[in-house]
Formats: sequence, structure tokens, C-alpha cells
Amino acid sequence: MAAVLRKCKRNGVKLVQQTCSVRFLKKRLPIVGWLPKYNLEKFQGDLIAGLTVGLTVIPQGLAYAAVAELPLQYGLYSAFMGCFIYCLFGTSKDVTLGPTAIISLMTAEYAKGEPTLAIALCLCAGLVQFTMGVLQLGFLVNFMAFPVISGYMSAAAVIIGCGQLKLIFGLKNVRREFIWNIYDTFRKIPETNHWDLTLGIISFVILLIMKWLKDRNWDKNRDPFTPLTTRQRVGRKAIWLIGTGRNALIVIVTTIFAGVLFSNNIRPFTMTKDVPPGFPDVGPPSFSYEHNNRTVEGEEFFSHLGPGIAVLPLIAILETIAYGKAFASRNKYRIDATQELLALGIANIVSSFFGSYPMSCSCSRTAINSTSGVRTPLGGIFAGLLVILALAFIMPYFQYIPSAVLGAVIIASVINMFEYQVIPKQWRIHKPDLLVWIVCFLCVLFLGIQFGILVGVGLGLIIELYGLAKPGTKVDTIDCCPKIAVVRFDKGLSFPASDFIVTTIHDAGLDEPPYKPVILDFTHVSHLDFSVIRSLALSVEEYGTNNTPLYFACVNRDLEGKLKKASIKNLQCFPTVQLATEAILGASIEDGDVHQPILMTELSSDHLDISSDTGEVLQNHISPTDKDNHETEV
Amino acid sequence: MAAVLRKCKRNGVKLVQQTCSVRFLKKRLPIVGWLPKYNLEKFQGDLIAGLTVGLTVIPQGLAYAAVAELPLQYGLYSAFMGCFIYCLFGTSKDVTLGPTAIISLMTAEYAKGEPTLAIALCLCAGLVQFTMGVLQLGFLVNFMAFPVISGYMSAAAVIIGCGQLKLIFGLKNVRREFIWNIYDTFRKIPETNHWDLTLGIISFVILLIMKWLKDRNWDKNRDPFTPLTTRQRVGRKAIWLIGTGRNALIVIVTTIFAGVLFSNNIRPFTMTKDVPPGFPDVGPPSFSYEHNNRTVEGEEFFSHLGPGIAVLPLIAILETIAYGKAFASRNKYRIDATQELLALGIANIVSSFFGSYPMSCSCSRTAINSTSGVRTPLGGIFAGLLVILALAFIMPYFQYIPSAVLGAVIIASVINMFEYQVIPKQWRIHKPDLLVWIVCFLCVLFLGIQFGILVGVGLGLIIELYGLAKPGTKVDTIDCCPKIAVVRFDKGLSFPASDFIVTTIHDAGLDEPPYKPVILDFTHVSHLDFSVIRSLALSVEEYGTNNTPLYFACVNRDLEGKLKKASIKNLQCFPTVQLATEAILGASIEDGDVHQPILMTELSSDHLDISSDTGEVLQNHISPTDKDNHETEV
Repeated sequence: MAAVLRKCKRNGVKLVQQTCSVRFLKKRLPIVGWLPKYNLEKFQGDLIAGLTVGLTVIPQGLAYAAVAELPLQYGLYSAFMGCFIYCLFGTSKDVTLGPTAIISLMTAEYAKGEPTLAIALCLCAGLVQFTMGVLQLGFLVNFMAFPVISGYMSAAAVIIGCGQLKLIFGLKNVRREFIWNIYDTFRKIPETNHWDLTLGIISFVILLIMKWLKDRNWDKNRDPFTPLTTRQRVGRKAIWLIGTGRNALIVIVTTIFAGVLFSNNIRPFTMTKDVPPGFPDVGPPSFSYEHNNRTVEGEEFFSHLGPGIAVLPLIAILETIAYGKAFASRNKYRIDATQELLALGIANIVSSFFGSYPMSCSCSRTAINSTSGVRTPLGGIFAGLLVILALAFIMPYFQYIPSAVLGAVIIASVINMFEYQVIPKQWRIHKPDLLVWIVCFLCVLFLGIQFGILVGVGLGLIIELYGLAKPGTKVDTIDCCPKIAVVRFDKGLSFPASDFIVTTIHDAGLDEPPYKPVILDFTHVSHLDFSVIRSLALSVEEYGTNNTPLYFACVNRDLEGKLKKASIKNLQCFPTVQLATEAILGASIEDGDVHQPILMTELSSDHLDISSDTGEVLQNHISPTDKDNHETEV
Repeated sequence: MAAVLRKCKRNGVKLVQQTCSVRFLKKRLPIVGWLPKYNLEKFQGDLIAGLTVGLTVIPQGLAYAAVAELPLQYGLYSAFMGCFIYCLFGTSKDVTLGPTAIISLMTAEYAKGEPTLAIALCLCAGLVQFTMGVLQLGFLVNFMAFPVISGYMSAAAVIIGCGQLKLIFGLKNVRREFIWNIYDTFRKIPETNHWDLTLGIISFVILLIMKWLKDRNWDKNRDPFTPLTTRQRVGRKAIWLIGTGRNALIVIVTTIFAGVLFSNNIRPFTMTKDVPPGFPDVGPPSFSYEHNNRTVEGEEFFSHLGPGIAVLPLIAILETIAYGKAFASRNKYRIDATQELLALGIANIVSSFFGSYPMSCSCSRTAINSTSGVRTPLGGIFAGLLVILALAFIMPYFQYIPSAVLGAVIIASVINMFEYQVIPKQWRIHKPDLLVWIVCFLCVLFLGIQFGILVGVGLGLIIELYGLAKPGTKVDTIDCCPKIAVVRFDKGLSFPASDFIVTTIHDAGLDEPPYKPVILDFTHVSHLDFSVIRSLALSVEEYGTNNTPLYFACVNRDLEGKLKKASIKNLQCFPTVQLATEAILGASIEDGDVHQPILMTELSSDHLDISSDTGEVLQNHISPTDKDNHETEV
């Protein structure tokens, strides 16, 4: 008793020591690790990157709020707290949390335009992510294969892009669901506001040109050993700056233009709705809202969020870890996936107290952050401060932003999410993956994101499991002796294949008389489970009762141990196919002909002579008096 | 248009021809194949086997009806139609359909003692099985691993065995659920009927002795070359006969004994309830029943059957196909799994019109059938006729069967279903399988069969998928050059492992400076999917940006093609690890030291020289101008 108490105490002390150690603190609050080493040079890098990201997140936040079907200010509410929290808990200098296209689309699907629901969803998502971090369940995202991810991202791009056509055309009362959206948009084309359309198309083309200029490799035809002239350097810097700030630039220019027209009482463009200035209400998220003069709360409230609580956090985790890893690898540092999960969870939980809808890692802003020369997660602080300044001072001017320009910004930024180029690649490399991609794409498009992802993951696993049930096998004959069959397995064998194995081995030798001796080539087999070993025992017994040799060749030491422990009667392992062949031929020469059935018992005594010749044969003959052997009974 | 019509017509004609061909008829109605070859010798074998099976199924049917918690006559109602139908559609001469222990237990769980529910369940199970046969979904049972099957069978044996203790002790009002059953039985031990207990124990011991006598190998110490004397032969035949008919024998003897006592007004034993004589009502199953003066029908009716409709048919399929295959292999013929499914489905559908509860293949009766020398499925006809005779003439005497004897019969027949011997075996051979076994066993025991099976199958798949997510890898160094790391994968790589692969490859060479060149040994890799190829491309890029070589060795021709098609920049494949090592060393000697980072571009030009030296190197350098290559972007 005293010993148990002592042990408990020791473990308790150990746990406390562990959680209070500096190492643990640095792991779970990474800022403690890097802040003491902070210096002016890092500050400079972080400041420039932070402001650039801030300049990007403001127009993007407004646009993504439109995708999420929330009032525009919610895009900004979601854009600052994540940066602050990530600065404390994040392990990547590049990752930038905030509103993203996919998560905004999912928010639209679950919150249906009701901010209270969106904020509650943010809290729930954060709690799920934090719990998953604590339980180290992040590995679950591995079961989302690339075709599933690419398929749903492409479908989301199509849904988001098509959803913005209504803004470009200046249409009203267009339904949200993809099919109805397309239908309504085309039906209402006659109602097009031509000013909106003109402005939208011009903005879109300008955005594409700016992006092209920025991405262009200006040094392609340049002699790499001539240094750049000052003019060239300044020119490139200017192009990069304009290209990076293109969203902010186009929004500012068109807003000023529309504002000036408005003050002269000319109102050609559809404008954004009134945006209330100032900060969001700070406080715990509410779990009830008014709808048609009725309070929605409790079970009904959560039934709206439904499967979103499970699916949305997973997608956010996937984005954050994937982009985090990609940029860590590019910039040669490592991230801690569990800590990223915790950081994302805490960011969502805290942000929900500031009126934020669910956040994730934005790929475009992370890339901007990285190329702007960010040095530590502190860069996020500056981006967040810029958003707060915008909320404080320029919110009133947001009402002059023409909707068509926001539409153009969104379409221009999701256009690259449609990964058409993986279609021919998957076709060439692995066709089942293309099937998964297409199914996932179509399901997301027509049945909704969560259903599409579920179907995609399910289909991927089914294809995988089907592969396990039908492992690759090849039945060959040996050149020197076509009357012996060799069955080659090309990977580890596991239980779904048990039945297939028995059938394959049966067909190789016992399909029809005269029966053929069979050698099982285990070169590529590195894994056997209990069900498979049982099936092999059944096959050995079947060949035994038919007096036909069934030998194992090239079994690795580990598996040989397992087979031995299974006490299979008359089990014979040989180090090579050649030796197994010689054993069969040696026995059959004495019997006159390989066609003749060879008595298993004779073989096992003959075989001792052969083994003394070759000196290498492993003899695994288990005593048949082993009474416990019920292995081959069903 | 005309061409399309012609094609439709051609396909239609082909389909009609196919389904009407003699071959198809023989496949789907196997009796057409074997009946014309029937002769007197086969008749003799079938008659003896059929009568022996009939003699076994009568007491077993009564006992299993008790397990199913139905009136005893339902055991016999379930015992004849299956034999007739299987004779028409079955492909195995040995398989005997009828009531079985496991299916009876499941029936008790879903039908809760209500015959109408049990009969409806029989129809539903038959329809599910038939549909699965038509859709060729029989392969689904492969996903039930051996530990799951063995675990639930062992748990079912414990549940059934413990459930009969109440009969042996002569207790009343014992609840059905396993835990309550044990609790009530122990609590009520003071109420034991000592006559029941005495009779039960004596019957049980006699049954065990008879089984032991039958299974004993009488010829162990006999000289195999001396023929048996007539006395020995007759003695052995008698022992076999008594052993095989032991259930019938003990039931008949004790029933006569109890009947004689009863007619003298001595009633020491608890007897079976009144059994109505004659045949069941023939007609379509009813979908409503009276309960507490209320009609249960429609949705409520089916809600009772619930998941039973999915789980029970699967277990029945599993039993039928497993035993069918086992006896086919033992007796050297083959069964058609799809046809077996169809036969089982039709048997259940038709039987439900004759008051049967769900049926499956009985292992014990199939074994008796086989050892009694059955020659064709016609044997079943004789067994079925014997059951019908029993229903017609001896039913009134069934009321004198002492319950304790039925209890003893059941316990004696399920005692071998508890597979204690696989526990140490699984421990020695494959520990995760033991975990699945134990979890499945405990869940079936305490949470119910369907839940236990679901948990078992789920756990098996999770372990399998976890294995896919963490494939076996070994990071070695080369003897001659410890500064080069070799990563060996031990099986095919698929998407759940993508992330693990990137991390493993990173850690092998880029964990900390000085970076190590890495060779990936693909000897055992026979499978790559798109997600994995993408991860490999990421790793190649990562090593590229770090100027450290990452070479592929021993890639098989098929996979090399796939990698090539993926247009991975700077991909280098070598036929052996040796050649890859030489390539790295050759390049580093020119650079002075292997520690020095080696420029990938330099390497790929150097490498051409090396390849011309060794003459065998495969050069897979893909032009870096391939513009479509977005492979490494997330």
C-alpha cells in the first residue's frame, strides 16, 4: 500500500516537474523561446511583413465575409485576434491565421448568414481543435488523401467563384446552393447592372495582370553574372509591392472613385451595405438568436451547426498543418504539429469572444508573409494592429466599396485553387486516385462540402481496403521445371486477404489433376497477421491431404519465427526458391516423376538428406503430436 | 440511332442466351447437374447420412429454440425447409442448413421471445442474403478478421452456456441479458430444484463421456498393418453411432423416464412447456403481433428487428461459407460462394413461410453429415423428412422432455466454441490480434453481439489503417560510408503514410547539420499512389533546396514509370544502393568532402559521367522547364 502511494506520489511529482519545466514551457508557449533573442533586425523584418499582410487581410477579410454571407465587418473581426494568439503559441514564423476562402464557404453552409451561429461555430471549432491537440489526434488528417483534398478545394473554388458572379453582374436575390445559384444567375442575366459588370471585369483583368507581372520571372533571359542595375532593382521592388498589395490597391482606388461619384449624387454601382464602425462587442459567444420574431436556442441552435462542428475544424487543421509544414520545409525550420493544433484551437476559442467566425491558415497571406521577410511570429502583431486601426478609423468608408470589385477580388484569388492540372497527372500515374478526385469534386459541388469529403475519404479507404483484400500475386512456373508453380506475393499480407490467399494457393497447384507442387515466394512479404497465418496453415493442410508439396521460400527471419510459433504441421521453409525446387525435384526423382503425388511424410524425411547436402536449408518440421493444434479447425 | 437499337437488341439477346444456357442453369440450380448421375450407391450413402443428421437436428432444434427463447416447436419448424431448398440450390454435399447456436442467440436478442418477430427476421435475413448474392457482395465477410470471429464465437459460447445454467438449476424468472442472467442465477441458487440439478449434471457428464469415446483415437497403439477383427469393427461402429446420436439418445431416455414418472403422478423435474403437435401454419410471415393487448406493427415492428437485419445475415453468411469451404477442402471439391449465398437466402425466404426463425449452416451437423458418408445434397431430404415425421407423430411426447437435459445438451455442444487455445497463440504470433480478440469478446459479452462485432471489425480496420499510416521503415547507414543514410521501406506505400514518409526522409538526412545524403531503398515497395508520389516529390524538392542528394534505389520498373510520369525535378533512380552510393561518393570526391553540401545541378551533370563509368545507371533527370509542374505546391 505504502509502495503504491509512493509510486503515485513519484508519478505526480514527475508530472508536475514535467509540466513546469522550462522545456515544457518553451514547447507549449514558444514565444518564451524566441522573444529573449529578439533584436532590431528581426523587428524590421517583422514590421514590413506584418504591414504587408495587414494590407492584404483587410480587403480579403471583407471579401471572405461576403463568401461567408456575413456582414462585411465580420471579416475584419476575424482578422486580428488570430494573429495575436498565434504569436504566443505558434511554432511557425510564416503561418498567418484569419479568414480563408474554404472556411468562409463552410461557414456560409452551416451558419446560413446568421452571425451568432458563425461565432458559436468558431468557439465550437476551437474547442474541438484544442481537444484534438491535447489528445494528439492530429494524425487523423492523414486519412484525407491528396485527391480528396484537391477535389474538394477545386470544387470549393468553383462554388465560391460562381457564387461571386452575382456581384459582378449586380444581381439580387440569388439563392445560395450551387445549382440554384447558377440557375438564378443565368436566369437573371437580363437584369444585369452594366456599370457593375464593367467595373467588375476591369478590376478582374487588372488584378490578373498585376498578379502576372508579380509572378513573372524577370531574370529568365538575363546573364546571371551581371548584377542588377539600381533602376532594375527599384522597378522589380515596385512591381512586387504593387503585385502584393493589388487587392488593397484596387479596392482603395475604386472605393475613392465610387465615393466621389456618390458625393456628387451619382450612384451607378451596387455598393456594400452599411458597415457599422468600431470594434466588435467583446464577450462570450451567445447561443441564441432571433429569427422571424422567435428565439432560436438550445437543441435547435446546435442542430443548425450540425456536422459542421466535426468537419470544419478538421479542414482548418488540415490547412494549417499543411501550409505550416510546406513553409517550414521551404524556409528550413520545423513545426510541432500538436502545438499548431493547440494554437489554432486557442485562437478560435479566444477570437470567438471578439465576434470572429472560424479561422484557419490562409495560404496566400502566409506566402506573402514569408516572401516579405518575416523573421518571427511577432509579425502577426503588426498585421493585427493594422486591422484594428482600420476598424477604428476607416470603417465608415467601407460602405463605398463597390460589390463588383469584391467579387473580382474573390474570383481572382480562388481561380488558382481549381487544380485542373492534377487531372491528367492522376490519369497517367494512378487512375483510382482520379476517380476519387472526380467523385469528391462532384459530391462537394452538388451535395455539399461535408458530404463530398466524407464520400471522398470513404472511397479512398474502400479502394485501399480492396487492395488489402486482393494483394498482388503472380503465379509463375520455374524455367527449369514447368511442372512446379511459384506463387509470388508482392506485399505484406493482412486479414482481408486471408480468403484470397487460400484460393490463390489452391488454384496454383490443386485446380485440377495432375496436382502441381507449389512454392510460395515470400521475398516481398514483410508482414503477416494471425488470420493470414491461419489461412496459410489451412493451405498447408490442404496440400498435405492431397500429398502435394507446398513449400515456403525466402521467408524473412521475423516471419519465420511467427510461422514456427503457429506450430503448423509439415511446414517447410527454404532460404531460396532454388533450394525449394531442388527439394521437390530430389524427392520426385526418387519417386520417378514429379507428376506423381509425393507423400508429405516421405518428403520431410528425404528433405533432411537434401539439407545436409546444401547445408543451408531451414528445417521447420513441427512434431505432429502437438495436441493443442486446432489451428486448422474453423 | 438504328445502330444503337441494334446494339441494345444484340446485348438483350446475349443476356437472354446467357441466362437460359444449360451452363447457367447448372450453375444456379446445381441439382440439374448432379441428379441425372444419381445412382443406388449414392442413395445408400445419402439415406444413412440424412437419417443420422435428422436424429441430431431434432434434439438440437429443440435446444436451440430454447436458446432463441421461442417455443420449442420453432426449433423443428426451422429444421426441414432449409434442407429441402439447399438440396436444389446448394453446391456442397456436406453443408446442412438449420438452427444454430449463434444465430439462435442473435434471434433471442432481436426477437425477444416473440415468434412473429423471429419469423419476420428470417424473411428479412433471407432477402438481405439473396440481394448480397445477386450483387456479389459476399467478399464483405473478408473484413471480419479471425480474431473477431473467434472472439464473438467464444463470447457467444459463454453467453449461451451461462444462459442454460438456469435450466440445469431449475430456476425461474431469470433475466436474459448476460450480466443480469449471471446475477439472477447466483442469487436464486437457494431455490435450486435438486432433481433438475442431479439430472442435468448426470446428462452432461454422460454426453461428455460419449463425445470423448467417439473422438478417441482407438487405433493409436495398434499396428497399422494388422486388419481389424470383426468384433473390433462392430464395437467401433457402435461407439461411433452412440457418440453421434448421443443427443437424441439422452433426450429419448430421459423423456421416457420422466414420462413414466409423470404417468405415475411423480413430477420431480421441470418439464418443457406444452408443445402443440403438427405442422406450422403455412403462409407469408406476419408483420404485426399482439403485445399487452396492443397491436405492434409498422415502424415499431421493424424498430425491434433494428440492426439485426444487417448483422444477422452477415454472420449466417460467414458461417455458411466458412464451413462450406472447410468441408469442400477436406473432401476435395469446390463450392461457389455466390451460389451458397443465394441458396442460403432462398432457404431463409422460403422457410419463413413455414414458421422458421433464421437459419445458417450448423458446424456440428455438417461434420456429422460428412463423416456419415453423404454423397450428394439429397441427404438433406431424408433429414428433413425425419423432422416432418417427428412433427407429425412424436410432438405430444416432447412435453415430457426435462428442461435440465436440454440445458445439458446445449452446454455440451457450445463448450467447444470457446476457443481458449487461440489466446496464447495470438499472444505469441501477433499481439494486436489478441487485443482485437479480447475487446471483441468483452464487448459481445457485456454490450451485445452486434456492438461487439462492430467494435471488433472497427478495431481491426483501425489497426490495419494505422499500419498503413506508419509503414515499417528502417534508417541505416552504409558500412563503407557511415555518412550516407539509407531509408528502407518494408512494404507498399499508400496515402495514409504520405506524411510519415516526408518526416522520415527529412529526419534521415536533414535533421541537423551537417546534412547527410540519403538513399531510398525501394526493394520491398511494390505500390505507390498519387498522394505518396506527391510526398516523395516534396522530399526531393526539400533535399534539392538544401543541396543534399536524395537518390532512389531498386525501384521496380512499374513504379519507376509512375515516378517518371510525375515529372519530379531532379529525380534520380539507380538500380542498386551500391550504384547510388558510388554516385554520391564520386560527386563528393570532386567536391572534397561528403559533408559539403553538393549542388543538385552539379550532381546531375556529374552523374552522367558516373553513369557512363558504371554503364547501368538509369537517368531520370526531367527537364526543369516543364511548366506544368505544380506537383510540389500544396
